[in-house]
Amino acid sequence: MPQRDAGRREVKIGSPVMARNDALAAENRSLFQRLHILAVNLISSPGSGKTTLLEALAGLLGDDLAVIEGDVQTRRDAERIAKKGCAVFQIETGGACHLNAEAVGRALAALNIEEKTPKILVIENVGNLICPAAFDLGEEMKAAILSVPEGDDKVLKYPAVFSRIAALLVNKIDLLPHLEFDPRRAVAECRSLNAAVEAFYLSARTGEGVDRFCAYLLEKRSASLA
Amino acid sequence: MPQRDAGRREVKIGSPVMARNDALAAENRSLFQRLHILAVNLISSPGSGKTTLLEALAGLLGDDLAVIEGDVQTRRDAERIAKKGCAVFQIETGGACHLNAEAVGRALAALNIEEKTPKILVIENVGNLICPAAFDLGEEMKAAILSVPEGDDKVLKYPAVFSRIAALLVNKIDLLPHLEFDPRRAVAECRSLNAAVEAFYLSARTGEGVDRFCAYLLEKRSASLA
Repeated sequence: MPQRDAGRREVKIGSPVMARNDALAAENRSLFQRLHILAVNLISSPGSGKTTLLEALAGLLGDDLAVIEGDVQTRRDAERIAKKGCAVFQIETGGACHLNAEAVGRALAALNIEEKTPKILVIENVGNLICPAAFDLGEEMKAAILSVPEGDDKVLKYPAVFSRIAALLVNKIDLLPHLEFDPRRAVAECRSLNAAVEAFYLSARTGEGVDRFCAYLLEKRSASLA
Repeated sequence: MPQRDAGRREVKIGSPVMARNDALAAENRSLFQRLHILAVNLISSPGSGKTTLLEALAGLLGDDLAVIEGDVQTRRDAERIAKKGCAVFQIETGGACHLNAEAVGRALAALNIEEKTPKILVIENVGNLICPAAFDLGEEMKAAILSVPEGDDKVLKYPAVFSRIAALLVNKIDLLPHLEFDPRRAVAECRSLNAAVEAFYLSARTGEGVDRFCAYLLEKRSASLA
């Protein structure tokens, strides 16, 4: 159907831009490997709980966590994370709908990451389930949050993100009694795109399940060093 | 700060593309005016309740409503709306992060809108709070949904959308007892961008408040005919 291609022209991203992004992502990636940092590109819709999850992770990891915050506008999220005593750098994209490797590279320099080296770096992407999927930031893994109020039908509607993640975080499980949401459906649809995905059920707000995700990240870092 | 512009290059949209979109949007707009259709471009995050709202509106408006559904992938939303007996056409963008005027023009032809003319046409944009803001589809007005679980801090984080809307729909108010969300904050921040915005508090799931939004749309259509 012609409608399948509707709008594609406007968002087609030129290969020189992608080649430049990939080159800068490779630089970030070799820095992460040299410093033994597990870098996670965290992607979700607006309001699914990325920043609340990072507050909870900061409580568990302390100095072992650093965060790069991506937002279209405002520094609200970085201020929330900084209160938890975690190293954080805010990228305000000024309109852009995703982060790129160049902006992350600058943030790494601003965080002075060679001197103050965390075990885990989470790059909180701009709240958007579509555009961030296409841009490599140099991360070791992508993770996506799907929150219960968003609905259990969202994985197949946004396959570019959900097919590329190593970890699916089903968040806001404290709201399950109030909503119709089948966590098994969401996870099964994600595994239909991506058989190896690891699933986590958590409530960033209450802290439930965050410890298991934290342990997974530390384990993943250890495995990458082995 | 240099970070403010990070990533802008990748999403800059060439002026020939925008000029072409604007020309096609003008064609759509004159069709809507000739047929006395109030066209609404409905924008929100994934999972904020756009489709559930349209199911509720279809229950109130019947044949007076037609819907164009935009999704990256799947026809799930159109199937849900069609069950309510409403005329609906699905645009699957195949990856693109927003609708454009050309795709909407094709959908109008497919809906045979000159023969089966609704009073209200809602164009449900792709679930994305960023990219759809930039593309005129020929609509009379934009409306945005902000759902309670997304948080009352989201308006200023996504100003491009919230500064351009005529109506702000605060949805999922049935979840207010379970979450910290100050509706006055969300509405006040929206009015700081856009003093004339009309605010609605509703639960598309329970139907609460949908009648008031429906009456507003019919009134807005009448006013545009006067």
